[in-house]
Amino acid sequence: MHNRAAVIAVDWGTSHLRMWPLDRSGKALDCRKSADGMRTVAKNDFAAVMDQHLKALGVPDDIPAIMCGMVGSRQGWQEAPYVSVPCNIGDPALGAVKIKNTARDIRILPGIANRSTENADVMRSEETQLLGLADQMGNALSGLVCMPGTHAKWVRVEEQRVLDFFTSLSGELFAALGAASVLKHALDGAGGDINADGNMFVEGVKQSLDEPATVLNRLFSVRPKSLLHDLNNDDAAAFISGTIIGQDIAGAKARFGDTGTVTLVGSGHLGALYTSALKIAGLSSQIVSGDELAVAGLAHAARLIWPERFNTI
Amino acid sequence: MHNRAAVIAVDWGTSHLRMWPLDRSGKALDCRKSADGMRTVAKNDFAAVMDQHLKALGVPDDIPAIMCGMVGSRQGWQEAPYVSVPCNIGDPALGAVKIKNTARDIRILPGIANRSTENADVMRSEETQLLGLADQMGNALSGLVCMPGTHAKWVRVEEQRVLDFFTSLSGELFAALGAASVLKHALDGAGGDINADGNMFVEGVKQSLDEPATVLNRLFSVRPKSLLHDLNNDDAAAFISGTIIGQDIAGAKARFGDTGTVTLVGSGHLGALYTSALKIAGLSSQIVSGDELAVAGLAHAARLIWPERFNTI
Repeated sequence: MHNRAAVIAVDWGTSHLRMWPLDRSGKALDCRKSADGMRTVAKNDFAAVMDQHLKALGVPDDIPAIMCGMVGSRQGWQEAPYVSVPCNIGDPALGAVKIKNTARDIRILPGIANRSTENADVMRSEETQLLGLADQMGNALSGLVCMPGTHAKWVRVEEQRVLDFFTSLSGELFAALGAASVLKHALDGAGGDINADGNMFVEGVKQSLDEPATVLNRLFSVRPKSLLHDLNNDDAAAFISGTIIGQDIAGAKARFGDTGTVTLVGSGHLGALYTSALKIAGLSSQIVSGDELAVAGLAHAARLIWPERFNTI
Repeated sequence: MHNRAAVIAVDWGTSHLRMWPLDRSGKALDCRKSADGMRTVAKNDFAAVMDQHLKALGVPDDIPAIMCGMVGSRQGWQEAPYVSVPCNIGDPALGAVKIKNTARDIRILPGIANRSTENADVMRSEETQLLGLADQMGNALSGLVCMPGTHAKWVRVEEQRVLDFFTSLSGELFAALGAASVLKHALDGAGGDINADGNMFVEGVKQSLDEPATVLNRLFSVRPKSLLHDLNNDDAAAFISGTIIGQDIAGAKARFGDTGTVTLVGSGHLGALYTSALKIAGLSSQIVSGDELAVAGLAHAARLIWPERFNTI
């Protein structure tokens, strides 16, 4: 029972929902995870699904909730229109949109967009992780933030402002080639075992940095190498991973130049691969676990929106 | 009935088999197409499948056959080991491997390989198209040959010699992103309708040539553009096509430099897209239909192997 929670924090994405009752210091008292992602919830059922989870946690009706994620997209519960760059990291919190027609006070954090025609881009949920980062790091959060994943985000941050960002199709390219290309056998089940300091990963990164134009050939190259030089599947997967991560970093350098230490939001294996690749690219990095950033960002936003519900820090 | 055919030409690939009885001038008398590709034929059944098709064409046992394609790979009927670059365009014909234990004289053309560890690559069936090109063009075949497709080949040719080549994962990348990525909806069913001179295709090509490092971002960019600027699926598909073809050409320029007019083996739509993209890249091109190159190459090879079966030219 969480009838004394200060606020409920909710990260409601496409495939999952996570819910944390927060105490008056902003600390999570519990975490409820569910597969009731946006994709499986009909437009008119968001309120009912939300209520059901809050009931299961024993949260009374008068406790407000702060949400982030695709639930605020056009296809979600209610659209929370993007804040445009450049903006303050706290702007999405200040621009949180109140859900209509609910007894409970529920707000959705907007994402952030670059609305230019040339560099149009969007993020939704990463702005909350950035808010969590700013909460942890304050003004030390400066330079480039790298958030690897299916759609990796590279964010240019300075003095608590988001100056610009872009998304790259890195993780999803690895997955798509593993699902539907001649690389299928090599990439099948790979990923978790790649050695971040192994020769093939390092070579993939280096070639992407040295000659980014030839990436389509380099992606194919593991196939003839397996035929002619007995390249095994593990080494092929490591090379492809290095090629894609190296290309991702080459793109960030081309777009933003060298902006000092990269703050790398990641944990576990992917974080280790990007740390190694950034080092090869001559960029120092500091790694921050992404696991708790969403709840930290939601807590930070809740404190800005409902200061009276929290202890003074 | 083709009981007076000089030779049987066979292109036996992964998914299809094509068979042409040739007359004494090397001209195809007929064309038999079948879905009995290598993939569906068990290792010990090649001879039976071959006989069955030859019977259907009414070809007697004493007429020899020349084959190309994956039937000569390690997983095929009998391996025809790759000829290494640099080599003469006619070397695969001279190195054709005779199938063991068949009454009929059947030869398989080997593919061509670059066996270096750095630029390892293989082709199998394109060497026969090159032979067909050489047959048609003679010494006018010089510079770069571009053979677009699932795995596009770029071949450096000079004075009837294959100096080097590489493969790029261009067509297959377009297909894989259409099958298994956030671009699925945009690319679904696209391809045939892309305007080779349309703004979005041209823009995709230009950006890949100008800044090849940022390709992972540019592949993603159509998604936010559809959200923020109502980019429609047709324009998104055109941009992705231009991006991939532009990146392919940027890779060829990085690898081989500018080698004069590009001989583009293609027909129909993909040929038009590459012609436009090569022009944007400042490369002139001459387009040659690929449809009849395989049979022309097989006829050329058969004439080298069994000169007595053909009329003197």
